[in-house]
Amino acid sequence: MNYVKDGAAIYRESFSIIRREADLKEFQPDLARVVVRMIHACGMTDLAQDVQASADAAAAGVGALRTGAPLFCDATMVASGITRSRLPGNNEVICTLNDPRTAALAKELQTTRTAAAVELWRDRLAGSVVVIGNAPTALFHLLGLIETGAPHPALIIGIPVGFVGAAESKQALAANSLGLPYLTVRGRRGGSAIASAAVNALACEDE
Amino acid sequence: MNYVKDGAAIYRESFSIIRREADLKEFQPDLARVVVRMIHACGMTDLAQDVQASADAAAAGVGALRTGAPLFCDATMVASGITRSRLPGNNEVICTLNDPRTAALAKELQTTRTAAAVELWRDRLAGSVVVIGNAPTALFHLLGLIETGAPHPALIIGIPVGFVGAAESKQALAANSLGLPYLTVRGRRGGSAIASAAVNALACEDE
Repeated sequence: MNYVKDGAAIYRESFSIIRREADLKEFQPDLARVVVRMIHACGMTDLAQDVQASADAAAAGVGALRTGAPLFCDATMVASGITRSRLPGNNEVICTLNDPRTAALAKELQTTRTAAAVELWRDRLAGSVVVIGNAPTALFHLLGLIETGAPHPALIIGIPVGFVGAAESKQALAANSLGLPYLTVRGRRGGSAIASAAVNALACEDE
Repeated sequence: MNYVKDGAAIYRESFSIIRREADLKEFQPDLARVVVRMIHACGMTDLAQDVQASADAAAAGVGALRTGAPLFCDATMVASGITRSRLPGNNEVICTLNDPRTAALAKELQTTRTAAAVELWRDRLAGSVVVIGNAPTALFHLLGLIETGAPHPALIIGIPVGFVGAAESKQALAANSLGLPYLTVRGRRGGSAIASAAVNALACEDE
């Protein structure tokens, strides 16, 4: 079988196809680079039309990561998709979904395990980068926490996927009146690969 | 904020929306169940039109998992997305991407690290379930291995994503003349979440 086996060449060609096909003109260059990598993770150039971000999102993410901000992830797949060698500040990647306290907390708060896991981030939320790639309830819970006084992350990458609450939770993130820097994808599409790709782009300029 | 917090209710409602919206009539019931879960993982009901599988795919996957077949994954995200508690046969989930031998092997074979990692599956491929959710080169390499005499897996879930080689490698899988049971998604779309969702559906009938 005849196919390209050079990893670097595959990346180069992939990113060049994306830049040729995707409509990126509404994005500033630093955000466009992030959108390119998000598209790379899902194979859909039309994802660009649904990406929505606050004006300060890319700068906030890059700055926080460079100064060593921890990354809070809602799912192990998200954590697994973050390329550790790209992280500029020896950043800790934290997922509390399987923390021994989470199940009891979910019962107590009468919510999902993923939402309860967010509760455990509270003490270190200030200046962190939050990456939600799976559960709408995690994003809703986070917004509720912050509205009721929890510290502000430097950036919320809120890209849960699915049919119940995903579009609504992302709409709530984009409409937040707290001035929270955010990056999201409108509608049902999203997921851990797209979310961790955004982190990988913010972490390092290499393509 | 008002939103559904009952995990089981969210699943039920999600699967019900998918069954209402997706065109599943060309699939046998056992495969339709798998397609529903793949759609759940990506938020796109029109994925159904691109799902392609051999007639024996679902039965082969279910049977192999029940008898304890190992799962070979091309990426840690794929491995991470497989819900261990759903696996019926105490199945081992194996990803050799970060095996200490892989980097040297990639150099020797002049291929990507992901393709080289496949080389390490050879001795246990017979009757296994292969799950490729990231790299086209891994799928191409696997097909090459089998064409040149490596044992046949029970099922190949070949759903790499992307712009270079993804569509082509999946076409090669679907066109295989070796009678290999397969499940794939035509075109550029795919990824670790869709691939591991397929495994999770085959592993257990619970929705």
